Amino acid sequence: MPKAFDLVVRNAHVATASDTFRSDIGIKDGVVVHLGLSLPEGERELDANGRVVTPGGVDGHCHLDQVIPPPARMADDFFSGTKSAACGGTTTVIPFAAQQKGASLRAAVEEYHRRAEGRATVDYGFHLIVVDPTADVVAKELPQLIEEGYTSFKIYMTYDDLKLNDRQMLDVLAAARRHGAMTLVHAENSECIGWLTESLVNNGLTAPRYHANARPMLVEREATHRAISFAELVDVPILIVHVSGREAVEQIQWARNRGMNILAETCPQYLFLTAEDLGIDDSYQGAKCVCSPPPRDSANQSVIWRGLADGTFSILSSDHAPFSFDDEAGKHPNGEQVAFPYIPNGIPGLETRLPLLYTEGVLEGRISLNRFVELTATNPAKLYGLHPRKGTIAIGADADLVIWDEVERTLTNDMLHHAVDYTPYEGRRIRAWPAFTLCRGRVVWDGKEFTGTAGEGKFLRRGLPTLRR
Amino acid sequence: MPKAFDLVVRNAHVATASDTFRSDIGIKDGVVVHLGLSLPEGERELDANGRVVTPGGVDGHCHLDQVIPPPARMADDFFSGTKSAACGGTTTVIPFAAQQKGASLRAAVEEYHRRAEGRATVDYGFHLIVVDPTADVVAKELPQLIEEGYTSFKIYMTYDDLKLNDRQMLDVLAAARRHGAMTLVHAENSECIGWLTESLVNNGLTAPRYHANARPMLVEREATHRAISFAELVDVPILIVHVSGREAVEQIQWARNRGMNILAETCPQYLFLTAEDLGIDDSYQGAKCVCSPPPRDSANQSVIWRGLADGTFSILSSDHAPFSFDDEAGKHPNGEQVAFPYIPNGIPGLETRLPLLYTEGVLEGRISLNRFVELTATNPAKLYGLHPRKGTIAIGADADLVIWDEVERTLTNDMLHHAVDYTPYEGRRIRAWPAFTLCRGRVVWDGKEFTGTAGEGKFLRRGLPTLRR
Amino acid sequence: MPKAFDLVVRNAHVATASDTFRSDIGIKDGVVVHLGLSLPEGERELDANGRVVTPGGVDGHCHLDQVIPPPARMADDFFSGTKSAACGGTTTVIPFAAQQKGASLRAAVEEYHRRAEGRATVDYGFHLIVVDPTADVVAKELPQLIEEGYTSFKIYMTYDDLKLNDRQMLDVLAAARRHGAMTLVHAENSECIGWLTESLVNNGLTAPRYHANARPMLVEREATHRAISFAELVDVPILIVHVSGREAVEQIQWARNRGMNILAETCPQYLFLTAEDLGIDDSYQGAKCVCSPPPRDSANQSVIWRGLADGTFSILSSDHAPFSFDDEAGKHPNGEQVAFPYIPNGIPGLETRLPLLYTEGVLEGRISLNRFVELTATNPAKLYGLHPRKGTIAIGADADLVIWDEVERTLTNDMLHHAVDYTPYEGRRIRAWPAFTLCRGRVVWDGKEFTGTAGEGKFLRRGLPTLRR
Amino acid sequence: MPKAFDLVVRNAHVATASDTFRSDIGIKDGVVVHLGLSLPEGERELDANGRVVTPGGVDGHCHLDQVIPPPARMADDFFSGTKSAACGGTTTVIPFAAQQKGASLRAAVEEYHRRAEGRATVDYGFHLIVVDPTADVVAKELPQLIEEGYTSFKIYMTYDDLKLNDRQMLDVLAAARRHGAMTLVHAENSECIGWLTESLVNNGLTAPRYHANARPMLVEREATHRAISFAELVDVPILIVHVSGREAVEQIQWARNRGMNILAETCPQYLFLTAEDLGIDDSYQGAKCVCSPPPRDSANQSVIWRGLADGTFSILSSDHAPFSFDDEAGKHPNGEQVAFPYIPNGIPGLETRLPLLYTEGVLEGRISLNRFVELTATNPAKLYGLHPRKGTIAIGADADLVIWDEVERTLTNDMLHHAVDYTPYEGRRIRAWPAFTLCRGRVVWDGKEFTGTAGEGKFLRRGLPTLRR
Repeated sequence: MPKAFDLVVRNAHVATASDTFRSDIGIKDGVVVHLGLSLPEGERELDANGRVVTPGGVDGHCHLDQVIPPPARMADDFFSGTKSAACGGTTTVIPFAAQQKGASLRAAVEEYHRRAEGRATVDYGFHLIVVDPTADVVAKELPQLIEEGYTSFKIYMTYDDLKLNDRQMLDVLAAARRHGAMTLVHAENSECIGWLTESLVNNGLTAPRYHANARPMLVEREATHRAISFAELVDVPILIVHVSGREAVEQIQWARNRGMNILAETCPQYLFLTAEDLGIDDSYQGAKCVCSPPPRDSANQSVIWRGLADGTFSILSSDHAPFSFDDEAGKHPNGEQVAFPYIPNGIPGLETRLPLLYTEGVLEGRISLNRFVELTATNPAKLYGLHPRKGTIAIGADADLVIWDEVERTLTNDMLHHAVDYTPYEGRRIRAWPAFTLCRGRVVWDGKEFTGTAGEGKFLRRGLPTLRR
Repeated sequence: MPKAFDLVVRNAHVATASDTFRSDIGIKDGVVVHLGLSLPEGERELDANGRVVTPGGVDGHCHLDQVIPPPARMADDFFSGTKSAACGGTTTVIPFAAQQKGASLRAAVEEYHRRAEGRATVDYGFHLIVVDPTADVVAKELPQLIEEGYTSFKIYMTYDDLKLNDRQMLDVLAAARRHGAMTLVHAENSECIGWLTESLVNNGLTAPRYHANARPMLVEREATHRAISFAELVDVPILIVHVSGREAVEQIQWARNRGMNILAETCPQYLFLTAEDLGIDDSYQGAKCVCSPPPRDSANQSVIWRGLADGTFSILSSDHAPFSFDDEAGKHPNGEQVAFPYIPNGIPGLETRLPLLYTEGVLEGRISLNRFVELTATNPAKLYGLHPRKGTIAIGADADLVIWDEVERTLTNDMLHHAVDYTPYEGRRIRAWPAFTLCRGRVVWDGKEFTGTAGEGKFLRRGLPTLRR
Repeated sequence: MPKAFDLVVRNAHVATASDTFRSDIGIKDGVVVHLGLSLPEGERELDANGRVVTPGGVDGHCHLDQVIPPPARMADDFFSGTKSAACGGTTTVIPFAAQQKGASLRAAVEEYHRRAEGRATVDYGFHLIVVDPTADVVAKELPQLIEEGYTSFKIYMTYDDLKLNDRQMLDVLAAARRHGAMTLVHAENSECIGWLTESLVNNGLTAPRYHANARPMLVEREATHRAISFAELVDVPILIVHVSGREAVEQIQWARNRGMNILAETCPQYLFLTAEDLGIDDSYQGAKCVCSPPPRDSANQSVIWRGLADGTFSILSSDHAPFSFDDEAGKHPNGEQVAFPYIPNGIPGLETRLPLLYTEGVLEGRISLNRFVELTATNPAKLYGLHPRKGTIAIGADADLVIWDEVERTLTNDMLHHAVDYTPYEGRRIRAWPAFTLCRGRVVWDGKEFTGTAGEGKFLRRGLPTLRR
Repeated sequence: MPKAFDLVVRNAHVATASDTFRSDIGIKDGVVVHLGLSLPEGERELDANGRVVTPGGVDGHCHLDQVIPPPARMADDFFSGTKSAACGGTTTVIPFAAQQKGASLRAAVEEYHRRAEGRATVDYGFHLIVVDPTADVVAKELPQLIEEGYTSFKIYMTYDDLKLNDRQMLDVLAAARRHGAMTLVHAENSECIGWLTESLVNNGLTAPRYHANARPMLVEREATHRAISFAELVDVPILIVHVSGREAVEQIQWARNRGMNILAETCPQYLFLTAEDLGIDDSYQGAKCVCSPPPRDSANQSVIWRGLADGTFSILSSDHAPFSFDDEAGKHPNGEQVAFPYIPNGIPGLETRLPLLYTEGVLEGRISLNRFVELTATNPAKLYGLHPRKGTIAIGADADLVIWDEVERTLTNDMLHHAVDYTPYEGRRIRAWPAFTLCRGRVVWDGKEFTGTAGEGKFLRRGLPTLRR
């Protein structure tokens, strides 16, 4: 038994993805080294007082300081974004290193390291976004970067500046198969969206709410089926990200019933928003909820909730895309009401992900506490090659911890720490928030203040995925 | 920190349903009290030497010393049965207290307590088998017994001495709903089986292999659909036990896709045997593999394996039904070759359950080690109200542990400790076996000898199910 | 070319199940002998004036003068029933010869011949209702009766006085297979209905509308799945009668997608009534619409309409069950409001079947005129071994014809010719009614009066089914 | 009654899509004017002697004299092609007028009229192939041409010179919806095929049989799902042509179960050939069976047969694509064994379509004679706006008739009348062949000789589709 711990968290009601138990947590050098009751005193002590302690959240899908076509610009850089994460209980983020057309993946990786270094306050990895899968990229860069710990990449089936054609998708999936990497797929049919958008705009239907009409469920379903087909052809697992409703879920279940290993992610916006939040009239406030796929309806929300409970979804991520509303680089640029195709796609959510799910999932009895941990920490860590270092509370794991306060309050944007000027969940009652967040044994949020430091977050060289589903 | 542990298991490669970590395990009063490396010395020490240590198995479906229609008689009583369990790594068993027609459930419970007491070597609970759901049984006995820790019951859709009619099923399911208990359903259509059996026997087709012809997949599928329908009508979760192949799996998936909470169990016989093991000719040796539902074919085996990996099945149980072959109370009574309808249904498997799954599941890469733990220990414990006391390795849990030896050997019945005179897996190569089994901190199997004691197994008063699926 | 026709129908817009053409129809000895324009004059002439002429309807499912448990008694005998049929365009009916428990099928057949003879005004056959499938019935009577032209039989899965158990169903289906006969299945789970009924009645919920609560969709779905399973086991086609909604349809489609030949019938009540017609409060008028399965909701109506259009259903029948409302033998016996389980099940509909479907199907564009003919005449004739004699307009077919008036009127019971004192469709606007109905060349309805004669209807010795689906 | 018929076909066993009856057929001016027995004598008489007489076949999918990328060239022009059709019982063909990229549809129509005029021996229409759906084509040419009787068009999802992208497909489907036209879709994913082809060729796998490996079932399934999705978005019926097996069928059934009106066609090659006919080794003879989609396996053949019987398929067409084998413009150009991507796609089949289906479908009992008529004549006529003029035997219909000889013979290419130098069915036993084919009352095939004349075939200005499914 070591003489001393750096820190002992006392009287924790520890929850992992499978278990719940009463224990102290002995921490040394940022790592959990002992579990048990009545541990000897540490250098520091923190009394959980019987409150729930979960592993720090792993947000496997968020966008920080990402280069996008102007005039839009992301409000969060790696400092404000990771600070916001920490204050909401997330201690690991995996944003994106996005390739530019005509440039190398390596250049992207270097660029995003520059953006993160010295600024991140919690640990981070990078998914690669592959937009230009040249022979060189596929045959040389990807294998090398996977080797270096960039073991996952995202591909897009929509957005003109990002989308791959079918053949490029096959090339990237084949590389994923050869090297054991995970491919995240944004599944929406680009040409259907374009065709509908043109038709809407030509008819003067440009208010934010028409964003939902331009991207009906079937454009997501079709692309999901297509992506599944390519995965079947290549024989490789894929992850369908931000699944929004029943029809996509049905395609995923169909594929699984055929024996395929198709993973699925969903996001808080498909649990807590509907298309009506984009406006039931032509009000421009709906721009705040413009994201893709768009939120659907309450029947689809139920399907997504059920999928969280029953194992359809392996992970819940934020898809944090930090665009301000009243900002020249945001959704209402210079106060102008732009047509929906020009509203930057995406909404903020890094900080609210865990409290919202804890409130409506755990406290409302829709999912167990263990499942909460699995969806928000353990499974993302396994899926992205970070387990058992991240995503759990176990001997040898990083001491990334959240102590939960179950107190009701009203969510307002001024409680939050991102650089975005609104939250889509303004005014919502929530019944849980982190009392403390610890990142590798350091308190980075104490329930009132952010107590971390820019640059303390470390880059995570990730292993291959270990999650089957 | 306590001065001493009763026992420290050193250098364990601990596996839970979600995590894997290197740790010592400090045990006091039969309970895991500390986890961490370099624990202080205990009264006793056991060096795992880096080997895998899992929670002791929980076998949620096995038959011991159960009263059945003569001349058949079970070979295992609570001593030989639990000894066999211990030697195969199982430290908790939940056999059945079977009501007799015209008698009370209470009488059954009392009878089976008499049979278990002083004989069990590992901990045990009882499922109730309800064969006579009178108004009194449903309204008074069941609630009282659930209250006393008999929180699950099994109902049969086949077997003349056991089966309920549709209406009785509804009555029992409604009681399960009212009191939060779990209902296990043996789903096969009795009348189809009778009709086919009569037709086969009338045509002189009486060899063991015709057992499979009398119970084709569709009789299981139909009953599964029917049981699901009743569960839907009553709005209550049920567990379909011993699912044998694709068509039943499809019904279960269909129900889940409609939002129902239908749980499913499978057994080693559906992974390791096929209908051919009942004989490809009229040889009587096939009687050794007569169980219901019968093993199917290799395509169905694949479906079952996939279901273990992908979450279709929540638990894997043995359905141990200990009938000897050459025994007057067994399958070949007095050396007589009886027609298949008279061969006692069921095969032994308590001791081989874990080694077979570890070998073919974990070591062959079909399932992860975590999933192995989940299927064989954590989920049965949750499903039957024993978690977190049983089914995991965590602070406060009973110190039920298995240290695994990964050595190849050939399985023969004389290695086993049940009282049955054969194993259906004779001659099979296995690559793992418990080096030690600990039950509440006591070593009950040391890799060579059974070291437990009759009567050390305690009755478990169980809570309500906590497993959602 | 014969010198003269008995009758020439001029200027017909003839519709068959596949074709539509302008033609005269030359009739001799009750048979269509010539088609073509400008036919020579007949003994009689009837000018269709370009109106649509369809084959006379074949109603493959109706109850006339059937012996049922007292005090209920059917209002229509073979005279009033067939008169009503004729006035609504139906020229062939196939009611039931219902076996009594303990009695032979032969006795039933003889009894119903006595009831029909000298009274029927249009042609008729008999389905057998098998309620007591003894070995003798199955092995001797059924084959003999099939040989004599009773080539179809109905079995019930509900109603205490009629239902077969699973094993009896298998026996009857096996006989159907051996002899090529068609089995009609009333698919509802009797025990679920009993269980729900008892629960409702015990809670004082006895108004007519609770009839729907006692028979929810799932009791029909479960029984449909079970019946399909038995047909699969025996390998024989069956007809699921009076399918009421989506869940049963899905089972049928599932079976067909597996390659099974499952036929399906629906009835006007599932197109034109909903459960609300049984009452949205406890009013007793809802008793008028009590039938089984009960009408569902508008979403299920849509499913049924779609099934008529897309081939899911092979036939549309009336399931005419003639119970009066204010009648001591009817639904409101001696003015008493009986609890729903005592309300005779079934509603009248022989006369309204064709006009309702013509109005809402053909004239509203939901189905083509050819499909109308197929569903109401050609397919029932094929299914029940009456084609090509019945069910079409072709050389050699019986001259059973309907000339249609497309005039809007309001349906009231005093327009109808059955002996029932109400119609569930009172007050409904309809836009089509027969201007003339001809049975074997005789005018039996001239648009104003019934012009047929009791006893002119002949018994039809039917062949084996020729409809595949 | 007219004094005389031009022709009377006596003692016909007439079959329509719904009926079968014994009749003479009185023909005047090329039209059926009377049906009935003992018709008065006509100018000419033809005794069917009780043989089956069906409507002349309507082949809704065949390629004649179509402009394709050199060096390939179609062997059949409108004379040899329609002669071949006539000799096999087909009296109406609908080949394609294929737009050239950069040119107008009008130009294509004019070009193909030039090719057909004076050469066709049976009646014909044209489908348009749309390869360049400019705004002008969609907004002006299509509506005008539909008005002129070109009421159907085909679009391709594969072949570099023909394929549309997703957005172009939406434009064309929207035009079809606006104007009530029918769209035929060749559904295979072009990029998957390209990716697989490149991989195969790069590995030296160039023999004909690799054609099947380059186009596995899933590339057809994916494109089928996608086409269905576009039809759903636009809300318009489409026809999926040449469906080859189970996975595509399942997509179609899935869409229909959702209420969509998706029609499906199959072809003889999916009933009578398998991928093995492309070679089980690298033999070049397999080039004779290279067509797209490729033939699958016997399990898929069974699915296609079932689909013909159960209504999944509305029509059976030949997809006649007349490439010779030993011909410089054919599959073995100048005796060279080209790599599979260079083998012209398509096989001959206009003349054999009806005899093969009659033999294996009707005479083997897989489908009824009525269904044979429906699939090969009535439904194509309805689908392509030719009914009731074509596709049936009824008063007022064109006297296009086939009198069938049911005699067994061995099929060899020298029996056939196309200009192709082989048939893929060489050596197959067939048991039926037309004894006579009549086109508008003219005998064009007398069982031994082609007796028609170039130029007697007339262009058919077609109406809108009237087939629902």
